[in-house]
Amino acid sequence: MKTVADELFKEFREHSVSEFFRKNAAMLGYTGKIRSLTTIVHEGVTNSIDAAEEAGVLPKVYVAIKNVDSNPEHLKVVIEDNASGIPEQYIPDVFGKMLAGTKLHRHMQQRGQQGIGIAGACMFSQITSGKPVTVTTSTGNGEITQMSVMIDVDKNEGKVLRREKFRGKWRGTRVELEARDVAYMRSRYGPFNYLRMTAIANPHVHITFIEPDGVMTVFENATDRVPERPRPMPLHPWGVMADDILTLAKRTKARSVATFLSTELSRVSKKKAEEVCRVAGVPQEKRPLDLTWEDAERIVAAFKQVKLLAPPTSGLRPIGAQDIEKGMRQILNPEFMHVITRAPKVYRGGLPFIVEAGIAYGGNAGKPVEGKNSDEEAGETEMDIIRFANRAPLIFDQGGCAITMAAKSIDWRRYGVDPESSPITLFVNVSSAYVPYTSAGKQSIADEPEIIEEIRAAIMEVARELRKYLYRKIRSKERQERAGIFERYLPVIARKAARLAGAEEPDIKPLLRKITGVNHAGEGQA
Amino acid sequence: MKTVADELFKEFREHSVSEFFRKNAAMLGYTGKIRSLTTIVHEGVTNSIDAAEEAGVLPKVYVAIKNVDSNPEHLKVVIEDNASGIPEQYIPDVFGKMLAGTKLHRHMQQRGQQGIGIAGACMFSQITSGKPVTVTTSTGNGEITQMSVMIDVDKNEGKVLRREKFRGKWRGTRVELEARDVAYMRSRYGPFNYLRMTAIANPHVHITFIEPDGVMTVFENATDRVPERPRPMPLHPWGVMADDILTLAKRTKARSVATFLSTELSRVSKKKAEEVCRVAGVPQEKRPLDLTWEDAERIVAAFKQVKLLAPPTSGLRPIGAQDIEKGMRQILNPEFMHVITRAPKVYRGGLPFIVEAGIAYGGNAGKPVEGKNSDEEAGETEMDIIRFANRAPLIFDQGGCAITMAAKSIDWRRYGVDPESSPITLFVNVSSAYVPYTSAGKQSIADEPEIIEEIRAAIMEVARELRKYLYRKIRSKERQERAGIFERYLPVIARKAARLAGAEEPDIKPLLRKITGVNHAGEGQA
Repeated sequence: MKTVADELFKEFREHSVSEFFRKNAAMLGYTGKIRSLTTIVHEGVTNSIDAAEEAGVLPKVYVAIKNVDSNPEHLKVVIEDNASGIPEQYIPDVFGKMLAGTKLHRHMQQRGQQGIGIAGACMFSQITSGKPVTVTTSTGNGEITQMSVMIDVDKNEGKVLRREKFRGKWRGTRVELEARDVAYMRSRYGPFNYLRMTAIANPHVHITFIEPDGVMTVFENATDRVPERPRPMPLHPWGVMADDILTLAKRTKARSVATFLSTELSRVSKKKAEEVCRVAGVPQEKRPLDLTWEDAERIVAAFKQVKLLAPPTSGLRPIGAQDIEKGMRQILNPEFMHVITRAPKVYRGGLPFIVEAGIAYGGNAGKPVEGKNSDEEAGETEMDIIRFANRAPLIFDQGGCAITMAAKSIDWRRYGVDPESSPITLFVNVSSAYVPYTSAGKQSIADEPEIIEEIRAAIMEVARELRKYLYRKIRSKERQERAGIFERYLPVIARKAARLAGAEEPDIKPLLRKITGVNHAGEGQA
Repeated sequence: MKTVADELFKEFREHSVSEFFRKNAAMLGYTGKIRSLTTIVHEGVTNSIDAAEEAGVLPKVYVAIKNVDSNPEHLKVVIEDNASGIPEQYIPDVFGKMLAGTKLHRHMQQRGQQGIGIAGACMFSQITSGKPVTVTTSTGNGEITQMSVMIDVDKNEGKVLRREKFRGKWRGTRVELEARDVAYMRSRYGPFNYLRMTAIANPHVHITFIEPDGVMTVFENATDRVPERPRPMPLHPWGVMADDILTLAKRTKARSVATFLSTELSRVSKKKAEEVCRVAGVPQEKRPLDLTWEDAERIVAAFKQVKLLAPPTSGLRPIGAQDIEKGMRQILNPEFMHVITRAPKVYRGGLPFIVEAGIAYGGNAGKPVEGKNSDEEAGETEMDIIRFANRAPLIFDQGGCAITMAAKSIDWRRYGVDPESSPITLFVNVSSAYVPYTSAGKQSIADEPEIIEEIRAAIMEVARELRKYLYRKIRSKERQERAGIFERYLPVIARKAARLAGAEEPDIKPLLRKITGVNHAGEGQA
């Protein structure tokens, strides 16, 4: 008997993930002409820096944006690095397959994570321009491979259109792609500012940038030290749910639950693992694959009853106050600066993170007051809040971000600052293997209470130093003004008084010194 | 030679789309305890209504939410419908495979589209509770199938844990799932309001809802007519890009470009297609599969030079003013109401849409002023803006939504309304095969200028009718008050004056009538 359902379900079909993101490119940050362009640059630069660090070399990144056919909304983006290169057989999948990559299962602090980024950029490029991405790469084995790759949307596979080989001693990767429906602007949301912010938080990175009008900007590296690579950090028991336990159990090589728990989770010794098994009523020798959901739930509960060391933070890699200072000085050249790296904290019971904050005053700090002047050179400046997560700039969606919220919640007058008219740049970086982004675009940190509180504390700490500096500056200015007045008038008064009294003119220098606290004629003591 | 890259790429792996969404459930609307629960209900109810309409029956949906183990954050959700049922072989994939479904390639106005919704709900349920979804379904062939299905996250496949069969005459589908980390509240963002709004925009749907405390609410259907199914609408040439042309070309059965264009696009006759080929310089007889990107671009350009009829709107299915009125009356029981369905418009050059607006005043219209009173019965009410896209309620992300923006941009005082203290419900529904949602959660319509303008026009049209009503109401109230004053004092004055003048008391009724415009003692004429 043929039912209505049989008829309706004839159309049941499966889609590829590429097809899904082709239709939903906005989910990956491709919305609006300027943001789409910045997202392409972001994906390429993120990959390049991650790859160079992974290879242990000082990242040198070259970014160029060019007009195609003098159409301002049709651009070519070139991103080149000096990292380890890509072995030939992986090229089609790196650029042409979504949800594939080397970073997918690692619990560590890194920029990219999902294996979508650069393939997403290729997808956007391909659906707007019809052009493949061109990849030139060498692993340093004397052979350079060039390939043109498109995404086969139906199969979610990279399709090689052209393949050439050259001989040459070079190592790195150069990606070229074309996109339409994009626009270049030197605005806050454009690639220039994105790279400038990247340079601030990554002073070890050397960036060369060429804008469509041919202007070249070099963001020199301010340090020669490659940051230590973050180490993969096993999950800490306080941060896992039953489903995580079972997922880990499927992938472990351990053959008993006790071994499994002590190898796949952090801060769990073999002895602790045995204790947890006892409390949970799960046999220590059970095979991890045989764990049931109930077992997993009891294990999660048992972990709350057993004493454990707090999550390790040794795998976290903050930038470090010294490097942030170098980065900010290089770009902002401020008259005053204070930077701190706070001690690690945890949120949601077990997820560690570190907040760093920096405040810069004067020089090129601050940003032009919007709407008041179009010419950035002239005009007033206001406080600029620059946000980072794991060193990657956060440019969009600032409203809902924990960093913005924390900064706005501060009573700046208490620090002698009017945020609307001060040349101040406030820098905040949150490092964690688990940054709670609010959306797939990864442009905003969720308002977890512990994170907001910690960011607030960090900002107040640097703001206090700024207050001291501003206070000293005002005092010294006042003193100088006061000194100026006495210096000008006291001698006159002394002379006239002496003349009236018929007395000799006194030496007023000691008096002046006493009143103004300022020495004269280079007599020392400030 | 073994390079650094070879070493690094050893870890290159592929992920399943299920694994991706397991990690990124927030992308599908699973964020926060209340919203997560509402999202589950939304996915189930959407599927049920779509399926019943598709089968041509009046949808009857049963929704129950129950506490599990008296844990307020561990809930069981049951959703049952009277639709066509699901053939046995499709059950595992409908609930256990993402990006699979019957609606994926159709260009038509429908609620679901991506083949993720209900599988996403099962995923969320599974990772929080560890429980499979239980599906009981029959296509009406006398056999009832019950299955427990889990998602195999690594393979993106439905895994059947249990399968049972019964005999019985019933047709429909019942879905039961359990979730943790959810919470039930009768708030604006909870399932109750979601279902109430669904009932308003779908007066043909009968909904029974049982809350965790056992309270049953029935939203009766206010009409017995099943809405006509929207028909698939081919894309109109004004709305396609080169990439769309090539995607369609891959799937067409046509063997020449001319036939392809005239069968796969709307408003393109064979003659028009030939003209377009001529203008584009593409041979009419070329096989669609042989079209190059350049051909496609030239075809897109040629369509702009050739005269075409505007996009058809016959496939759009607005709710209809009469049905909206029924829905609103059933739920809000207002003292005044005005509803309109506007003529179709297009945005972005070629995408048709229809706006409907309704305004209800008095009765249960409006919403309690937030923060002022917790008791909904007492207290003040303010304007309630209820948003819909293709009849589905939009509950979250109201800030960035075109409907909210349009409503807020209106100077309500001109319509005699203070939005902050009036018992008004403003209803807006946007129907289109291409609603431009701002995010994957599909809770907010992007601010396309043509759409905002059209919504504004629709709101002003209904607001004008409300103004007339309020004006009449005020005038009649004033008249009655005026009449009351004269009625009370005129006879006294007349009597006293007559006594003073020694004259006879006059008949003042004609005078009263003249002054107040109100007849007395049932003399007729209002």
